[in-house]
Amino acid sequence: MRVLVPYDGRDPKTRLSSLFDDAERRTLARLMLEDVIDVLERAGRTPTVLSTAAVDVDCPVILDQAGLSAAVNRLLERECPVAVVMADLPLLNVDAVDALFERDGDVVIAPGLGGGTNALVVRHPEFRVDYHGVSYRDHAARAAEVGAGLSTVPSFRFAVDIDEPDDLVEVLLHGENATADWLEDAGVRISETGSRAVVAREELG
Amino acid sequence: MRVLVPYDGRDPKTRLSSLFDDAERRTLARLMLEDVIDVLERAGRTPTVLSTAAVDVDCPVILDQAGLSAAVNRLLERECPVAVVMADLPLLNVDAVDALFERDGDVVIAPGLGGGTNALVVRHPEFRVDYHGVSYRDHAARAAEVGAGLSTVPSFRFAVDIDEPDDLVEVLLHGENATADWLEDAGVRISETGSRAVVAREELG
Repeated sequence: MRVLVPYDGRDPKTRLSSLFDDAERRTLARLMLEDVIDVLERAGRTPTVLSTAAVDVDCPVILDQAGLSAAVNRLLERECPVAVVMADLPLLNVDAVDALFERDGDVVIAPGLGGGTNALVVRHPEFRVDYHGVSYRDHAARAAEVGAGLSTVPSFRFAVDIDEPDDLVEVLLHGENATADWLEDAGVRISETGSRAVVAREELG
Repeated sequence: MRVLVPYDGRDPKTRLSSLFDDAERRTLARLMLEDVIDVLERAGRTPTVLSTAAVDVDCPVILDQAGLSAAVNRLLERECPVAVVMADLPLLNVDAVDALFERDGDVVIAPGLGGGTNALVVRHPEFRVDYHGVSYRDHAARAAEVGAGLSTVPSFRFAVDIDEPDDLVEVLLHGENATADWLEDAGVRISETGSRAVVAREELG
């Protein structure tokens, strides 16, 4: 099964700009991509990066400058099954990836926080994606429309994508990979305020 | 194994006060408690509510006005194994509860977002809790100190506790219980702004 990892390295993770400058955000996005590729490969999968521009990674790359949904749908028109795993999931480990692929279902979704679709396995030829808006809800509706059985993988390791600074708390606490190490080296630390921890960045001497 | 469900109904969920008045917040906290009791019982477990005040529920209640950590530790001094499951986990279902209890480990933690400890199974007589601060990190350290093997259950259904309005997005999308129905009836709706959905409350006519 082809496992697509969509990637757009042009101006990534703008909502982290309170913590990181442009170059750092590109480095972070790239590290997260490499971590996702690495864990997929260690789980015995063969990822293909779906990128808006040339990217030097150690796996096949499909270039498509269309938006995310259009580019994925172009593949879904030609191939089935296809999986799509987001590139900003630094908590992923082999157990979580195995759970995704072992789950039965015409459409299997690992939901993200806030209604996202952080990973998807499509085994039904008529299913199409729309990542805009509350995509979990829209994908569930689309699956019902085409008569595809829907399963979910309610995994914390898939649910946490990196959008906002406080998402990094989860990487510092539960990450097992290069992204977690890079954050430590960059001085990102957990700061205990309120009932949920937040992060701050230290000046490194 | 005793399964404690700590509950403090005095002034619950103050960070939801932009959406709900005091009476509604008490109703919501109580409904979430009942949902957790219900799912534990359906999973074949026998919950005991650990409450700061009398509470009329259909299971045993231990009254203790000490703080959460002190009250749990008093039980841990007398009994082992003990499990502790938070009362504000409206995404819980039987599969998630089964996964918690099936996981081997002297100490098993289902982490919450932001470093919390949303469920805990303690099979080591020297382990004690401290829910203040980044409790996941502190509990991992405590387990190491007493030589207890630590396992985690990285489940989305355990990770989402209800602290802030936008946590309700997850209940509306993934909840399967009375709390989700109550939110719908109260006019809480998903509002699509930004890459993660948020909630708003409708005026009901």
